[in-house]
Amino acid sequence: MSDPIDPKRREFIGLAALAGGSLLLTGADPLFAASNPNIHSRGYAALDTSGKLVPWTFERRPVGDYDILIETKYASICHSDIHQMKGHWGPQHYPQVPGHEIVGVVAAVGSKVTKFKVGDRAGVGCMVDSNPECASFKAGEEQYCPETVFTYGYPEASSPSGISQGGYSNNIVVKEHFAVHIPEGLSLQEAAPLLCAGITTYSPLMKWGFKPGDKVGVAGIGGLGHMAIKLAVSKGAEVYAFTTSAEKVDDIIAFGAKPVVVDDLAKLAPYSGQLDFMISTIPVDYNVAAYAAVVKPYGTFTQVGMPERFEVTLSAIGLAFSRVNFNASLIGGMPETQEVVDYCAEHRVLPTIQVIPASEINDAWEKVVNKQARYRYVIDAATF
Amino acid sequence: MSDPIDPKRREFIGLAALAGGSLLLTGADPLFAASNPNIHSRGYAALDTSGKLVPWTFERRPVGDYDILIETKYASICHSDIHQMKGHWGPQHYPQVPGHEIVGVVAAVGSKVTKFKVGDRAGVGCMVDSNPECASFKAGEEQYCPETVFTYGYPEASSPSGISQGGYSNNIVVKEHFAVHIPEGLSLQEAAPLLCAGITTYSPLMKWGFKPGDKVGVAGIGGLGHMAIKLAVSKGAEVYAFTTSAEKVDDIIAFGAKPVVVDDLAKLAPYSGQLDFMISTIPVDYNVAAYAAVVKPYGTFTQVGMPERFEVTLSAIGLAFSRVNFNASLIGGMPETQEVVDYCAEHRVLPTIQVIPASEINDAWEKVVNKQARYRYVIDAATF
Repeated sequence: MSDPIDPKRREFIGLAALAGGSLLLTGADPLFAASNPNIHSRGYAALDTSGKLVPWTFERRPVGDYDILIETKYASICHSDIHQMKGHWGPQHYPQVPGHEIVGVVAAVGSKVTKFKVGDRAGVGCMVDSNPECASFKAGEEQYCPETVFTYGYPEASSPSGISQGGYSNNIVVKEHFAVHIPEGLSLQEAAPLLCAGITTYSPLMKWGFKPGDKVGVAGIGGLGHMAIKLAVSKGAEVYAFTTSAEKVDDIIAFGAKPVVVDDLAKLAPYSGQLDFMISTIPVDYNVAAYAAVVKPYGTFTQVGMPERFEVTLSAIGLAFSRVNFNASLIGGMPETQEVVDYCAEHRVLPTIQVIPASEINDAWEKVVNKQARYRYVIDAATF
Repeated sequence: MSDPIDPKRREFIGLAALAGGSLLLTGADPLFAASNPNIHSRGYAALDTSGKLVPWTFERRPVGDYDILIETKYASICHSDIHQMKGHWGPQHYPQVPGHEIVGVVAAVGSKVTKFKVGDRAGVGCMVDSNPECASFKAGEEQYCPETVFTYGYPEASSPSGISQGGYSNNIVVKEHFAVHIPEGLSLQEAAPLLCAGITTYSPLMKWGFKPGDKVGVAGIGGLGHMAIKLAVSKGAEVYAFTTSAEKVDDIIAFGAKPVVVDDLAKLAPYSGQLDFMISTIPVDYNVAAYAAVVKPYGTFTQVGMPERFEVTLSAIGLAFSRVNFNASLIGGMPETQEVVDYCAEHRVLPTIQVIPASEINDAWEKVVNKQARYRYVIDAATF
């Protein structure tokens, strides 16, 4: 959609151009064939709204001048994958490969790539393309560019399947701009969840503006929520974690937060007007105004969880009484994504993960929906 | 609920106390009878959720030490009256007299009243009592005190009917703190709508913080919306008025705003990200995120219209893309209510009104619902 080179030329960039460029390959896979310049991929795809994935082989575009090819090592499971594949956010094209927390090793680079070299450790999050001329792009908020191509299920002319295909697969081709470096000292499996869960919680926390000792609330303690706790604790906040799962209390304390079990909305009352800021990762419709009321008057409550149809219903009178500003935040831009990965590496802010083989994806999805994930499932890409 | 004097004593303050105090009366009505110290009132009440009002006589509490009795001259019609009487905001006690835009002349004052004297012109808005010890009260934001008694339909032990009874009646008894002075040069009929429509729009406009030349949006051009336009224009803003009624365009231009007819949400697109601030008076559920998107990223969109069940549904992803802060505002405190009345008197910011007799209330209510009001119906209290 927004190739820095003339898009009309893109389709002609095949093996010939690659052979003449700086393309380098690693690995034994016959990624290229003379008759077909596309990249061969295998992964797990949804074929319908059932929420069940099956093994699928497919093709990706050849590595363009500004592209890198990443051999995936790990891809982690986000609740968004499930929402989108089930059609909760609108009708989907199938087969579709989900996954937007992707890490691996650079296996090839296009002729004009400067940011990566073969062998680098790289990560890809929720975006794979956008328009470099867009004001949002220039401001480092690529996710708000109207032309952004999100990592899976978005129309993408360059993709042989017509849509972007995500990270539950053994490789990915992506513009170098939309990949970040994974610093030394951060394991690839622990890096993966930072690409969505990390940046999605880090960005609003940073935008709100931290002071050590501030009281920060986190509602919904799953993949995103547990990262929000760890990030806010790391930044010096006094963190209150609001969960409906009493079984998570010990973990929450270990993460450094004070647990509040909300099995009844009345449990929120003692915190009314107490917190400086709150982030909600709750990915279903819920009583927003009741939760927002725990924030101080004129404070901010940021929604990052995305419910079915993206809809949240709130009481205008409830929000008036609390005087809280409600807003929503979508991941973060590429500079900030690199920032959170670097921050987490330096400060050892690491997700709590369970590595699983691809064969367990469907079971893991059910556990994510049933709030049984502890706290991020990371798929070993060697098993795709 | 929050009498500055011992509430247990309140019931003993009858004619005896009043006779010994500074109570003064005007007018010929036999407001007091030896056998019954209550104030006799006549007005229009809802008896059920039909949205039809009928004449009703009832009693108000005697004038307490800190109370004033106002002989009503005008009471204007707010969409909130209709919502509440119809039960849109929850089950109601009937008979109930609506009305929270009330102006008149002080006819009696309690023994400890210092703010008013008999003959003063006074106005009452949406509140009649609250707790002076509450932090919100002390901050001049009485409306956010949990013990606030709103002007009609709220439990009120001192009221013979058990609930507060509003301003569609020939008089009202109210704590002096909850009445404002109507300055010279402001007609009573034009003052009435300021007590809700005026303060409800003035307060968020002032909180947001004005700079002349700022671009301000107003959505929903009825009683509140037309005041929001006039106030924002008066403060130097460049005002964009978003309406679904093409018939209002000429009026909107006369009020000083640029009209935008939103007969299709696509009409909002050219304004995407353009405005500094927006206020919505729309009193039904609507596509909040689509309207909010006309505000600049990180700007503010304030909801003051209160829909059925107070519920607004919004797209979290839409709000994320616009990056707009959504909040809601409830009227304004008493100091600010006096401020807006004084401001409007000084700067001749006057509502556009139609004075009607009480017999036309039911017809006027239908017109309010059908968007035919131009722009505030004001009831002549002499006709109750």
